[in-house]
Parts: sequence; C-alpha cells; structure tokens
Amino acid sequence: MIQQYEITLPAYSRGYHLVTSEIKKHLKTLPKYGIVNVFVKHTSAGITINENADPSVRVDFENIMNNIIPENQPYFTHIFEGADDMPAHIKSSLLGSSVNIPITNHKLNLGTWQGIYFCEFRNYGGKRKIVITVQS
Amino acid sequence: MIQQYEITLPAYSRGYHLVTSEIKKHLKTLPKYGIVNVFVKHTSAGITINENADPSVRVDFENIMNNIIPENQPYFTHIFEGADDMPAHIKSSLLGSSVNIPITNHKLNLGTWQGIYFCEFRNYGGKRKIVITVQS
Amino acid sequence: MIQQYEITLPAYSRGYHLVTSEIKKHLKTLPKYGIVNVFVKHTSAGITINENADPSVRVDFENIMNNIIPENQPYFTHIFEGADDMPAHIKSSLLGSSVNIPITNHKLNLGTWQGIYFCEFRNYGGKRKIVITVQS
Repeated sequence: MIQQYEITLPAYSRGYHLVTSEIKKHLKTLPKYGIVNVFVKHTSAGITINENADPSVRVDFENIMNNIIPENQPYFTHIFEGADDMPAHIKSSLLGSSVNIPITNHKLNLGTWQGIYFCEFRNYGGKRKIVITVQS
Repeated sequence: MIQQYEITLPAYSRGYHLVTSEIKKHLKTLPKYGIVNVFVKHTSAGITINENADPSVRVDFENIMNNIIPENQPYFTHIFEGADDMPAHIKSSLLGSSVNIPITNHKLNLGTWQGIYFCEFRNYGGKRKIVITVQS
Repeated sequence: MIQQYEITLPAYSRGYHLVTSEIKKHLKTLPKYGIVNVFVKHTSAGITINENADPSVRVDFENIMNNIIPENQPYFTHIFEGADDMPAHIKSSLLGSSVNIPITNHKLNLGTWQGIYFCEFRNYGGKRKIVITVQS
C-alpha cells in the first residue's frame, strides 16, 4: 500500500531548517506500521534527521559543513553557477536526498530529540519540491 | 506486509561497532524478497554499512571522522553538552540515521565484505534505541 | 509487491559515473506508485543522486572528496590493501550504499537535474554488483 504526496516548500534561506511539522501536516492518516520516505527533487539541497531542540545546532551545522566543503577552491572547474553551487552539490550527496522514518502505531517513530531538517545549500535556492511516500 | 521490532542496544564505547549478528538475531523468518530498514532513534549516533573483516578499518573510521569534524572549533556555539556533542550531530547526519538492505531468498543480501556498523559518536552515549522495519 | 534485480556493472574507472540509463534499462514496467532502492554490494564503492548535466560536476566530486579524505595519512592503520582503500571505505559510508527514489505514474520521479551516480572509489575496482528492489 502506497500513499504519495508531492509538495512545494517555500523558499528557505541558506541553512538548516526544522520541517517536521511542515512535513506532518501533508500526511493523512498513517498506517499502523510502515516507512515514510521524504525525497528532495534537487541536487543543491538535502534532507537529514537531527536535533530538534536547540537552534544553535543548526547554526553550527551551517558553519561546520562550510568548513568541510569550502567555497572557491582553486581546483574547482564547475564555477559558472556561482561560488555556492559546487559545494552545494557535494553537501547534497553527503547529507543525502532522502530520509526514511519508521511508522509505528500510526505515527512517525522519531526519537525524542529527532526532527527532520530541510537543508538549503544555495544562497538563493527558491522553492523546492519534495515527494513524500508512505509505504505499508 | 510489515514486520517491525524496536530494540535497545547496550551501551557501546565511542567508535564503530559491527552489529550485523546483533541485528539478525532480532529478525524472525524473513520474506523471500523485501527491504530491511534499520533506524537509529538518536542524533549523536549513526548507522552505516562497511567492511566486516579487519577491525583496523573501524579504528581508522574513528580517527578519520574525528579529523574531518574536529572538536573544540572556536566558532562552535552549541557547546554546553560537551566537546563531543556537536561533532556527534554532524557525524550522525553525514553517516545517516538509517540503512536499507535488500532481502533475497529470505536473507539479508549483503555483499561478502559488508557488515552493519553501529556508530557511537558520544564519549558516553549509553543505551541506544533502534527500530527495525521489514517490508515485503 | 516486490520486484528485484541483481545486476553486475562493468568495471568503471575511479570517479563518479552517471548510470541512470544503465539502471533504468534493467527495470521492467514500474508500478504506478512505489519506491526503488538501488543498493551497492561493496564497501569501497557508493551510490548517490546528483547533477545529471555538466560533467565538470563529476570531475569536481572526485577532487573535493579526495580533499576531504586524503590518502596516506600517517595515522592510518588499514594500509595493506593500498593507499586508495581506507579512503574508499570512508567515502562509501559518507555517500552511502543505497539510494531510494520515488516512483510516480510508473516512472522514477527524479527532479529535472537529478541523475544516479555510481561512485567508484578504488583505482581498480573491477566489476561491481548492484541490487535493485522495486516496492509498491
């Protein structure tokens, strides 16, 4: 049994954004057991699961990921889309284009401190498309 | 068809631990074909698939990941939970909170050298909760 | 409902290779809605989703990933399989051993710019085995 929803996220600023509630509000009644896959249809944005409480974690995410994959390296060849573009592609693959979350008793079975982060890696990424697939 | 098991792993030391057998012993008869998802309900631990033979790989994993995401960087703002906490969050997202493994002929269809690593990123992470979902 | 295909990829050179068409040609009629999982049965290769247009992105992937995980670090202990081996294991876990892609209206629902990259991290990796599982 599959339920599927294709949604458009509003334009987020560059950075890491907690979207658990945004995702949940698009879901109808969930099955008793299953898996939800949340898939980002872009190569310069990503999705991951991380700490849902302290906003400073999301600030540090931006800075640490920029430190691991710095812009403007002299050996970059894919540069015509801007200094933020090629690092955005790498971040997208490192953090991933989809997450899977178990469903238990009709609810997302996230840990107490887990939330879904939408990760915007471009300076001006614009609206982004997401596909949510519920399997049971 | 969904089978699901929520289990608690014992407290592992900081590092990378081969848990393929531990995961398998919680599984009942697997379907002929399907997918197993193993999901970690924490934001400072992770799960990945890697080399199941030489323990030196897991030693190097710890050192290489610490080198990529060093502790105590001056720009960190999320520091009140300890020097190992913010790097643990980043590692959790880089390696991921779940793995998917195909089931073929009632068995996990891992490659010859593949095993499941539970990744404990905290110095004292304690017991950790895992959700195993079998889809067929 | 599960369809599953185990295929062997030809030996690719070290680097990032667009294999969307290669994967698609092994798929029979897809269900209306579902998820495709593409799983690599190796610990020194990986699979990810990224930009399908400009080959310079894949060149930069190789160089950036080599910069993040350099070979021949003095603290490596797993060195008997060659200088490219231990970095290959790390890259495999950072990029991941499988991707999930939603199926919508009998097609892979990738974004306009998304393609499937097979990532060969060894200098001479040889043929590689892939398991494709279609869930609906």
